Amino acid sequence: MTSKSLDYENLNENVKKCQYAVRGELYLRASELQKEGKKIIFTNVGNPHALGQKPLTFPRQVVALCQAPFLLDDPNVGLIFPADAIARAKHYLSMTSGGLGAYSDSRGLPGIRKEVAEFIEKRDGYPSDPELIFLTDGASKGVMQILNTIIRGAGDGILVPVPQYPLYSATIALLGGSLVPYYLEETANWGLDIANLRQSVAQARSQGITVRAMVIINPGNPTGQCLSEANLREVLTFCYQNNLVLLGDEVYQQNIYQDERPFISAKKILMDMGPPISKECQLVSFHTVSKGYWGECGQRGGYFEMTNISPKTVEEIYKVASIALSPNVPAQIFMGLMVNPLKPGDISYERFVRESKGILESLRRRAQIMTDGFNSCRNVVCNFTEGAMYSFPQIRLPPKAIEAAKKAGKVPDVFYCLKLLEATGISTVPGSGFGQKEGVFHLRTTILPAEEDMPEIMASFKKFNDEFMEQYEDHRGYSRM
Amino acid sequence: MTSKSLDYENLNENVKKCQYAVRGELYLRASELQKEGKKIIFTNVGNPHALGQKPLTFPRQVVALCQAPFLLDDPNVGLIFPADAIARAKHYLSMTSGGLGAYSDSRGLPGIRKEVAEFIEKRDGYPSDPELIFLTDGASKGVMQILNTIIRGAGDGILVPVPQYPLYSATIALLGGSLVPYYLEETANWGLDIANLRQSVAQARSQGITVRAMVIINPGNPTGQCLSEANLREVLTFCYQNNLVLLGDEVYQQNIYQDERPFISAKKILMDMGPPISKECQLVSFHTVSKGYWGECGQRGGYFEMTNISPKTVEEIYKVASIALSPNVPAQIFMGLMVNPLKPGDISYERFVRESKGILESLRRRAQIMTDGFNSCRNVVCNFTEGAMYSFPQIRLPPKAIEAAKKAGKVPDVFYCLKLLEATGISTVPGSGFGQKEGVFHLRTTILPAEEDMPEIMASFKKFNDEFMEQYEDHRGYSRM
Repeated sequence: MTSKSLDYENLNENVKKCQYAVRGELYLRASELQKEGKKIIFTNVGNPHALGQKPLTFPRQVVALCQAPFLLDDPNVGLIFPADAIARAKHYLSMTSGGLGAYSDSRGLPGIRKEVAEFIEKRDGYPSDPELIFLTDGASKGVMQILNTIIRGAGDGILVPVPQYPLYSATIALLGGSLVPYYLEETANWGLDIANLRQSVAQARSQGITVRAMVIINPGNPTGQCLSEANLREVLTFCYQNNLVLLGDEVYQQNIYQDERPFISAKKILMDMGPPISKECQLVSFHTVSKGYWGECGQRGGYFEMTNISPKTVEEIYKVASIALSPNVPAQIFMGLMVNPLKPGDISYERFVRESKGILESLRRRAQIMTDGFNSCRNVVCNFTEGAMYSFPQIRLPPKAIEAAKKAGKVPDVFYCLKLLEATGISTVPGSGFGQKEGVFHLRTTILPAEEDMPEIMASFKKFNDEFMEQYEDHRGYSRM
Repeated sequence: MTSKSLDYENLNENVKKCQYAVRGELYLRASELQKEGKKIIFTNVGNPHALGQKPLTFPRQVVALCQAPFLLDDPNVGLIFPADAIARAKHYLSMTSGGLGAYSDSRGLPGIRKEVAEFIEKRDGYPSDPELIFLTDGASKGVMQILNTIIRGAGDGILVPVPQYPLYSATIALLGGSLVPYYLEETANWGLDIANLRQSVAQARSQGITVRAMVIINPGNPTGQCLSEANLREVLTFCYQNNLVLLGDEVYQQNIYQDERPFISAKKILMDMGPPISKECQLVSFHTVSKGYWGECGQRGGYFEMTNISPKTVEEIYKVASIALSPNVPAQIFMGLMVNPLKPGDISYERFVRESKGILESLRRRAQIMTDGFNSCRNVVCNFTEGAMYSFPQIRLPPKAIEAAKKAGKVPDVFYCLKLLEATGISTVPGSGFGQKEGVFHLRTTILPAEEDMPEIMASFKKFNDEFMEQYEDHRGYSRM
């Protein structure tokens, strides 16, 4: 039989090379077990509504009205929709040319991009230009587009933190570029050490790679840390000196669970630093409606803002965006609602604040329960989740467990996570999917299970883990990092 | 000043190379004129709601309820939503795990994929497997994903009809592949001549290109023809013999404006042909919620169905889809509603039929008005729009007009379309954006302006065109194709 175009052996090699662990082997096994009737706790992906988080009422009212504009003329509409939701729906519909069913401009609706710019200005205290803001179908699609604009081939390197969110490794592989890792320091609460960065770039250069961009994820995914102002200054100086465009993945900027280290945007620090750096260093920042206290993942809404990017390049990015015509319009409305929230005095304001504070405060408590839970387990150590939605405990696997994994043909942390899944139904992602130092093992779990379920989940985890350790420890100790 | 990563000269060359005429020079100029206050008739893109088409009521009711699930418990909900919309919203919400705010499986919700499979089975009379159906953010995204899976480099060729929809040329350029054109026969009502195909493949091979896939657009865009059953059989035989995967762009399958040549899917013909071809020939078919009588472009919903593709390849496509997590969920609901419409006896059935028939019948009349209008103009000839949403008249430009265009530094059809835009506000796309035979010129316009505006638009076109011809004709005649 002849081999055909879409037979495996003939596919684009870059497609085959890329890996995406968040929906990899563990997720597929969990889906199978679920089909067989096992109760699965899906903590593999930051998908809050799937774990019971309720959507915020006001934005849903507005988007429902935008979907059904004929309701705006219905005399009974006031019986089930508040007046401010009706007004807001009219506001957003007036920005469209033909409602939610019409393609928007490929960069997104100009009116929403203006609201995003106003949000950024207010957040950072510096001007933001709507013409440099593009709306996207979720932040991931924006990241993919920018990386596609940068990467020309295997000689182009992108600095990516390790551990990292596998969107980056997968996309770089798909585009045929080279991932240049820089390690975050677990013992320094996953801080970024500029010496590691220098070393990574030097090593890449010695291999003939041109490092062209650097990714930061702030707050960190999967690591949960918030970058300090000093750290951000160092990063920007480094990018400036090395002629790198900085990609600032800031999708968790509203998910902060401590007061000592608030979120600060890369754009603000860049502007604070003044010329020449503020006028020279290229930056693209990403945001989303999927995270924060919104968690509107399924809507697929995001934006990116470009700083110090020339009009000619912006035109090229616009051209490529136009091939798929436009980001989905309903999610653009969600983005407008997120960046331009209700104000004190609005009819729905108190409810909105109650709902959003409730979610954030509960996430903060859950971050603490989870960290404490992991740290109470044998051979498990875990930094506190300062921000984002994940806990990333280190699992100190005994040599016998590593041997058993090898025998089973599994990477050791995959082996551990599979056993955890089978025993407890907790679906996590092995640390190897994010990258980790040689011989060190982790897992990532979201902090999203319902607060009332948390104690039981952590008890179930502890029982599994401690028995696992009992089984595989030789009681003679083993090396620690 | 050092040149930076995102400066134009350093960008990915494939990004710079690709062109997307539907939102190219003409669209940008039209947007400028609109800002200056000129009334623009945007017929550059098939965007029905932007030209006044109203959304179908029932699907919008269902999706509005899905966005605001708390309404389902509101005692007043029955005052503004019919019972069948409420039932349908519950039906779709029960398929999600967490409503519209949760990521779905990266292939889309299993329940919707099952409804799509049932629709295909009913349409074609052959089984369809939900596991081989992936939901996408519009059909374009699906096409881009499949082409990315196929194209390995410049040595890989994709057969594309000329004239073609520039999604194909742009995506092939972006992915670094080679477009292999095959010409449609304007004088045979844009039919597909298998001899042209053979010649194209032979020529590509002589240049060292491996032709790996063939694209058909049926009904045609921009050409509007419906492929006959005989033509489809020839195409499938050709693909089978030459080991090509067939990409069937069937997004206009509900837009048919004559009864002689109904839409027939490539899948049906493939199955009709029986083994070995029905079991061997690889096919990927695309559909959307953006066209038909729906026109829900802004929602960005689509699907593709794979036939004779091995599980290993499907896994790879699944993996890549998972990098961006999931297609937007609201549009998945629209897809469900499109493939599983209301049935006689449902409360909202009559309204639904009235609305959808109204749109289709009006489109049919508009297709006729437009064809007749173009054919009444000096030096313009136009095939009837059998299907899809476009009219693609040939404009026989006098030599003097071609000279004037050259002097102005413009491609002749761009020159004509710009003059048309400035004079009348009608924003079209020059034929060169779709490809056309050397020395032959066209423009594409949608048939979407409101029916009541059509006579005036065509009169305005005729006035411009005939004056243009008067100005540039030397009254000594010129060559015709």
